[in-house]
Amino acid sequence: MSQPQPIRNVLYIMCDQLRRDYLSCYGHPHLHTPNIDRLAAEGVRFARAYTQGTICGPSRMSSYTGRYVSSHQVSWNAVPLPLEELTLGDYLRPAGIRTALVGKTHATANLEGMQALGVDPQSERGLQLAEAGFEPYDRNDGIYPDGELFADKRESAPYTHYLRNLGYTGDNPWHDWANAAEGANGELLSGWQMRNAGLPTRLPEQHSETVYTTGRAIDFMREQGERPWCLHLSYIKPHWPYIAPAPYHALYGPEHVQPVLRAAPGEESRHPVYQAFQQHQESLNFSRPEVRNTVIPTYMGLIRQIDDQLGRLFDHMQGSGRWDDTLIVFTSDHGDYLGDHGLGEKEFLLEPAVGVPLLVRDPRAAADATRGTVEQTLVQSIDVLPTLLDAFAVPGAAHRVEGRSLLPLLHGHRPADWREYAIAEYDYAFQAPARERLGRPIDACRMYMVRSERWKYLAYDGFRPQLFDLQADPGELRDLGADPAHAEVREQHQAYLFQWLRGLKRRTTISNEEIDLRGQAFRYGEPEGGKLVRIGEW
Amino acid sequence: MSQPQPIRNVLYIMCDQLRRDYLSCYGHPHLHTPNIDRLAAEGVRFARAYTQGTICGPSRMSSYTGRYVSSHQVSWNAVPLPLEELTLGDYLRPAGIRTALVGKTHATANLEGMQALGVDPQSERGLQLAEAGFEPYDRNDGIYPDGELFADKRESAPYTHYLRNLGYTGDNPWHDWANAAEGANGELLSGWQMRNAGLPTRLPEQHSETVYTTGRAIDFMREQGERPWCLHLSYIKPHWPYIAPAPYHALYGPEHVQPVLRAAPGEESRHPVYQAFQQHQESLNFSRPEVRNTVIPTYMGLIRQIDDQLGRLFDHMQGSGRWDDTLIVFTSDHGDYLGDHGLGEKEFLLEPAVGVPLLVRDPRAAADATRGTVEQTLVQSIDVLPTLLDAFAVPGAAHRVEGRSLLPLLHGHRPADWREYAIAEYDYAFQAPARERLGRPIDACRMYMVRSERWKYLAYDGFRPQLFDLQADPGELRDLGADPAHAEVREQHQAYLFQWLRGLKRRTTISNEEIDLRGQAFRYGEPEGGKLVRIGEW
Repeated sequence: MSQPQPIRNVLYIMCDQLRRDYLSCYGHPHLHTPNIDRLAAEGVRFARAYTQGTICGPSRMSSYTGRYVSSHQVSWNAVPLPLEELTLGDYLRPAGIRTALVGKTHATANLEGMQALGVDPQSERGLQLAEAGFEPYDRNDGIYPDGELFADKRESAPYTHYLRNLGYTGDNPWHDWANAAEGANGELLSGWQMRNAGLPTRLPEQHSETVYTTGRAIDFMREQGERPWCLHLSYIKPHWPYIAPAPYHALYGPEHVQPVLRAAPGEESRHPVYQAFQQHQESLNFSRPEVRNTVIPTYMGLIRQIDDQLGRLFDHMQGSGRWDDTLIVFTSDHGDYLGDHGLGEKEFLLEPAVGVPLLVRDPRAAADATRGTVEQTLVQSIDVLPTLLDAFAVPGAAHRVEGRSLLPLLHGHRPADWREYAIAEYDYAFQAPARERLGRPIDACRMYMVRSERWKYLAYDGFRPQLFDLQADPGELRDLGADPAHAEVREQHQAYLFQWLRGLKRRTTISNEEIDLRGQAFRYGEPEGGKLVRIGEW
Repeated sequence: MSQPQPIRNVLYIMCDQLRRDYLSCYGHPHLHTPNIDRLAAEGVRFARAYTQGTICGPSRMSSYTGRYVSSHQVSWNAVPLPLEELTLGDYLRPAGIRTALVGKTHATANLEGMQALGVDPQSERGLQLAEAGFEPYDRNDGIYPDGELFADKRESAPYTHYLRNLGYTGDNPWHDWANAAEGANGELLSGWQMRNAGLPTRLPEQHSETVYTTGRAIDFMREQGERPWCLHLSYIKPHWPYIAPAPYHALYGPEHVQPVLRAAPGEESRHPVYQAFQQHQESLNFSRPEVRNTVIPTYMGLIRQIDDQLGRLFDHMQGSGRWDDTLIVFTSDHGDYLGDHGLGEKEFLLEPAVGVPLLVRDPRAAADATRGTVEQTLVQSIDVLPTLLDAFAVPGAAHRVEGRSLLPLLHGHRPADWREYAIAEYDYAFQAPARERLGRPIDACRMYMVRSERWKYLAYDGFRPQLFDLQADPGELRDLGADPAHAEVREQHQAYLFQWLRGLKRRTTISNEEIDLRGQAFRYGEPEGGKLVRIGEW
């Protein structure tokens, strides 16, 4: 096929902790998201997209490097990315494409590494490294608690200062105004406590994080004018604290809460790791109907607010001509259990956490044939980076990038050698309660998901696997991990995991081209300027 | 047990391409190595020590980092070590222990990485990084061919200048004098051609590499006086070019050449990768008796010369008191097929290449009980680094180091949880002829050895495994890799490989202690200065 002209701009939208099925285009019956749905209608909706890690740090570093968690090594939040990893910005910067961030990345400065290598954290490169390669046009990683420990982080957030300039006072205005409600007697009711989720924030909507973030994206586009750009617009919502400004706190009620997805007592998996995660506070709380009925309507409201704001942004883009020359990706870093499977949060590799929405609208004519289609192919968050490089016609690094460009799928061609399975990882070494309850050494708390067309296989260090038949049991309610009738399926998926581990890219300091060149020349050729010896010559 | 006082000094001797069975203490019937044998008599001889990679670069980077090849990523020669890897010198330097090199490391400066991170290659740290963390007291990586391409490397070798100062002229005196003989008509006969292996070098023995290198080690020890040190004395011999100074060129003859080790025609393994390696020039040449009879006596002479020089060094150490306060390690980076199995060189994972000599003499009383013993436990080259740190009582990094300290074994205690298998790797992506002959993609040319107490299992990307029963068939002449009777053994070893891959250390940017601290505090405690929220609180 003929290659289309490279795209001019990319808008890479990410939500935080947005469940795939909490969008109307993915089937939610009550939560209408017409603006996001528009991307589905005018682009491709990937029905089976998976994140490579179900918490922010690992997931995002996979997205920004195009590599699996085991490769980039950021196995949890606030773990620094190795300095030698290359990110989206590192690939695009040399091509002259401004690669900016508005919102969150969860990148953690690798200060120890910089110190060891003598890289000044305040140098231009040091600052890029601390930002996972993005230009932090407006970085807000989210809310932090009170107290000295987090003072620097609170103060480094532009949104903190935005609020103060508006007259919202205090050490932590983000918490006290944007993430707190007011009680009947004027007392502050913190959004950290889920019991307050149904109340409106003290802050009016126009000053909320989501509106602020959208406004900054518009500022960036305006400022950039006709020069090409790649903008990572990364909303911190609907991640907890679950609290929304009016009117979004009250758009939905218990009547809009989907029934909980959980096996009947006695039929639930008794897998020890699963059971340990069910003992977490958030899991126990989300197992109570009153918690779900209080939190989920607000979670829905926060999503609806993002959708409304994307409407505002898309209107702006249409007015400025950007709608026609910008490729738009919409996704999330991971989902949220919200009580399903007796779990809260997202630290387990079942669909509500590991499945992510992924919509891609490519404005070019080459994508006309696939507009409005639903793609069932197994895709991964690490595919976004090579897709964007491909769209910009900027070379990547085949010896590093583990994802694959989605452009062929977007342009109606399914490569014959597409992957047979998607992979996700989680390391609960960092979860001391689960690790200690399970008596696991800190080096052996890894879990892996292998998701093939039909099956999901979950492998655990030191425990039996779990297995779910996603065709017969899309809710993952029946664990076949110990079922003798499915031994062969488990073996096949263990073989996939083995194959994947063997295939991880572990030659990051030399390119494939260099290897090939050297293999040809070093031992068997006569490169310019050097008479070469043939090893083992008689 | 009580801990002995930390050691004062370490002498870490490495030979290049020295086969384990080419020392009298390992059973060679004709090649007497009394000085090396003395380390065996006064220390522990490890009968089953394995290198993690059978060519210089990967093997050495494993030794210097204490990590498997898949972890440090230097999968071939002249592949740069990632800058964030920590080496022996990086661990010892902060403890005030001068960690110097005399001889070879095969470290390749990671200039691309330095450029990306803004590290000046000429800065102190830049220079350390280019030397894999060693202070290059006298670095000589070996001989280079003629021509412009290698001019910088030739000129950077102190030995080149040493020769010139002695009046040995030319662009490449190392080649023209130390690695060439003279023909009857005064013509130069290059050591690059194995047909010349039986002739003496033009250079007298006292100016040869091995004598020079030993002298520099003595210089270092003298200079260092009573201050503690760690010296990596790394001989470039008996690596090819196979040519020795008189009298070592003529100490041995064809009558001292061991019978070739090779299965009878028709009984040899028909494994495609094995057969492809048998087609290499060095393999074809070493399959001829005249080549073996010419080369092997000289190979033996070069080893004998090292032994004599070690005698000189050990005498010096006894005279200066260093014999009593220095822990001595003697090993090799890998072996040499010398025609066994129809192979030359070392790029295949059979015993002549992957087995290495390993002798450790700890002068402290704690090691008295094991002096002169032979240890059958499976040990690896990556164990040396943690052993040295342990001896110096300098902490390592549990989240990085994959080897284990041998001190318990040296002090008479066998840890109950010792490893069940040794691992080695080789990636023939760099071997264009084999790769192309086998039709393999550049990303899938990896081979792995899993060596358990009894068995050796060799796994190949895209081909069936090989299997050898080292108990019944120590020569590895009978490939059971396709034998239906051994399916279970193969499965067990495949499971070992899987387990090993899963267990590789992939969290290099955060320590286990930090993970534990954070797991305890971040979510469930109240660290100083910060009132923490409990996630999912109602």
